[in-house]
Amino acid sequence: MGKIDLLGPSKLALVPFVSVANMMNIVNTIGADRMIAELAEYIEADFRRWPLFDKTPRVAAHSKEGVIELMPTADAENYGFKYVNGHPANMARGYQTVTAFGVLASVATGYPILFTEMTVLTALRTAATSALVATYLAPKDAHTMAIIGNGAQSEFQALAFRALCGINTLRLYDIDSQATQKAMKNLKAQGFDVIACADAQTAVEGAQIITTCTADKQFATILSDNMVGPGIHINAIGGDCPGKTELHKDILLRSDIFVEYPEQTWIEGEIQQLPQDYPITELWEVMLGQKPGRVDGKQITLFDSVGFAIEDFSALRFVHDKAVGTDFAEPLDLLADPDDPRDLFGMLMRAR
Amino acid sequence: MGKIDLLGPSKLALVPFVSVANMMNIVNTIGADRMIAELAEYIEADFRRWPLFDKTPRVAAHSKEGVIELMPTADAENYGFKYVNGHPANMARGYQTVTAFGVLASVATGYPILFTEMTVLTALRTAATSALVATYLAPKDAHTMAIIGNGAQSEFQALAFRALCGINTLRLYDIDSQATQKAMKNLKAQGFDVIACADAQTAVEGAQIITTCTADKQFATILSDNMVGPGIHINAIGGDCPGKTELHKDILLRSDIFVEYPEQTWIEGEIQQLPQDYPITELWEVMLGQKPGRVDGKQITLFDSVGFAIEDFSALRFVHDKAVGTDFAEPLDLLADPDDPRDLFGMLMRAR
Repeated sequence: MGKIDLLGPSKLALVPFVSVANMMNIVNTIGADRMIAELAEYIEADFRRWPLFDKTPRVAAHSKEGVIELMPTADAENYGFKYVNGHPANMARGYQTVTAFGVLASVATGYPILFTEMTVLTALRTAATSALVATYLAPKDAHTMAIIGNGAQSEFQALAFRALCGINTLRLYDIDSQATQKAMKNLKAQGFDVIACADAQTAVEGAQIITTCTADKQFATILSDNMVGPGIHINAIGGDCPGKTELHKDILLRSDIFVEYPEQTWIEGEIQQLPQDYPITELWEVMLGQKPGRVDGKQITLFDSVGFAIEDFSALRFVHDKAVGTDFAEPLDLLADPDDPRDLFGMLMRAR
Repeated sequence: MGKIDLLGPSKLALVPFVSVANMMNIVNTIGADRMIAELAEYIEADFRRWPLFDKTPRVAAHSKEGVIELMPTADAENYGFKYVNGHPANMARGYQTVTAFGVLASVATGYPILFTEMTVLTALRTAATSALVATYLAPKDAHTMAIIGNGAQSEFQALAFRALCGINTLRLYDIDSQATQKAMKNLKAQGFDVIACADAQTAVEGAQIITTCTADKQFATILSDNMVGPGIHINAIGGDCPGKTELHKDILLRSDIFVEYPEQTWIEGEIQQLPQDYPITELWEVMLGQKPGRVDGKQITLFDSVGFAIEDFSALRFVHDKAVGTDFAEPLDLLADPDDPRDLFGMLMRAR
């Protein structure tokens, strides 16, 4: 007899699932600050073995409303992918701009070993990546960060930069002052010194780090050239589509530009504005000490972040390590598992 | 206050999930024969509006053990993708060669509207596609089909060809005689006349349709040229990897070749063996009457099937129509849904 009808699904059929509620339990059990720092360690470890990964630019389906993307990568043991959307108009409808979920699988069998929400996880891993990169690129004495764009990602950025880079003063600006008020309230409760600013120009004054995280899907100029002085590190995380950029081209020409995966960043990042022979540096090479990061105090460094699959892979590894075998993961009856693996049809007939 | 801690997840957070047990309930409630016929209608409807889809070859991660693939496609309303693996060595370890799951989403919001097992569903949609294609290509008086490869897919093929093409006699061969015994037992119980054959040559004798559905990555010639007489329709569904083919090249040269999506079939199908200017016909054009299917009784027709994302999209649409809003679908807490969509961080903090 089949397993389903008598005993319920077998162990092989069940994939550990981490729901949104359980992801929030994980974050709140570990603590958001500490989890971001631990995620950064996983991400750094994977960046440092970058050449071992099977890499491809994400597969994007664009529509007038937004984009849906699949972000796969694999090493010799595990395969991971994330499904993620980006829909700037969602907010006005009461939906998230970005939602995500993902899977970690065994390369040897092709079987998923983790299915998890990744909306919360993506917010954490994006912030962890930004702050990790800033440990290589930001000026050492940085204490103040401007955050332009105060949506769902902004607080996570702040936590990450405090945990990894010692930032404790934040200067906020958003075209929507309600977003700034929301971020201000959340971040004050986390113990930051927070200044709400009337415009982007004001926000960047006195900041050693500028984070841009806006969502609009168009060529925009969140930062113009005169706003960026020497020595600044720019953490530009809003760009993630062909035709969507945040920085004026002249800023790029004055900056040393660092990217995750050039093949994807040329399609989606700020460097869309530059010719493809323009010199850029891959971050994994900086982390391995093969290329310089920040070399002097006058240099403008730019992390042209678009988000790469390996960061999600690291985050999936982290959640797998923390959740599988605990109450944070529920068994999901996702895989058909006949007694005789050749006999899928027999299993189906016996289930009648 | 957030919704999670007081009331559980909101409706926006919940994605309908169809488990393996529920997929088997759906199949057994509708009846496997009828469900295959209905799936064929969905697939044909989507083939007939082929130019409207956003199409790409699937994204494959190959390893020495097998392959893991993502198969996305979209029309103006919906986006769908399937995760599927193919691991020929799995069977010996008690795992399925092929397992799958998939998602249907809204293009307008990027939110998933269905998450479902697709191991069982893929078996059904693959068979439905084969038989649908045969209604255009097989000889009209076909009554006997050879099935070479008697693994998990074989019984579904038989059911589909009876439902759509009137096949009631089956000639089975597999290098593993236990597989043949398993298929024979299942198919006799379904009322077929079944003959177990000692080799592939014997299996094809008297058959008007030859189905090859083998899984091994290394067997190159399941059918040799002398085994295929005039008037035959070959349904070659086993090929799905670069470097994996089932038919001798000389058979291809004598056949009229029909494919799903040329950009993918050139990479994975039997036509890997041919120069890329070799004439092939796209099935959607046959279904729209823009290109001929079978034109005479002597012609050898070959469906060089690799499985394309639009077939999964059709199957996802079918399951969505049948399951969502019924007990076949369970709500899964997959999407973070803060009261204020900008306030993901606040939701996380309030969940403490």
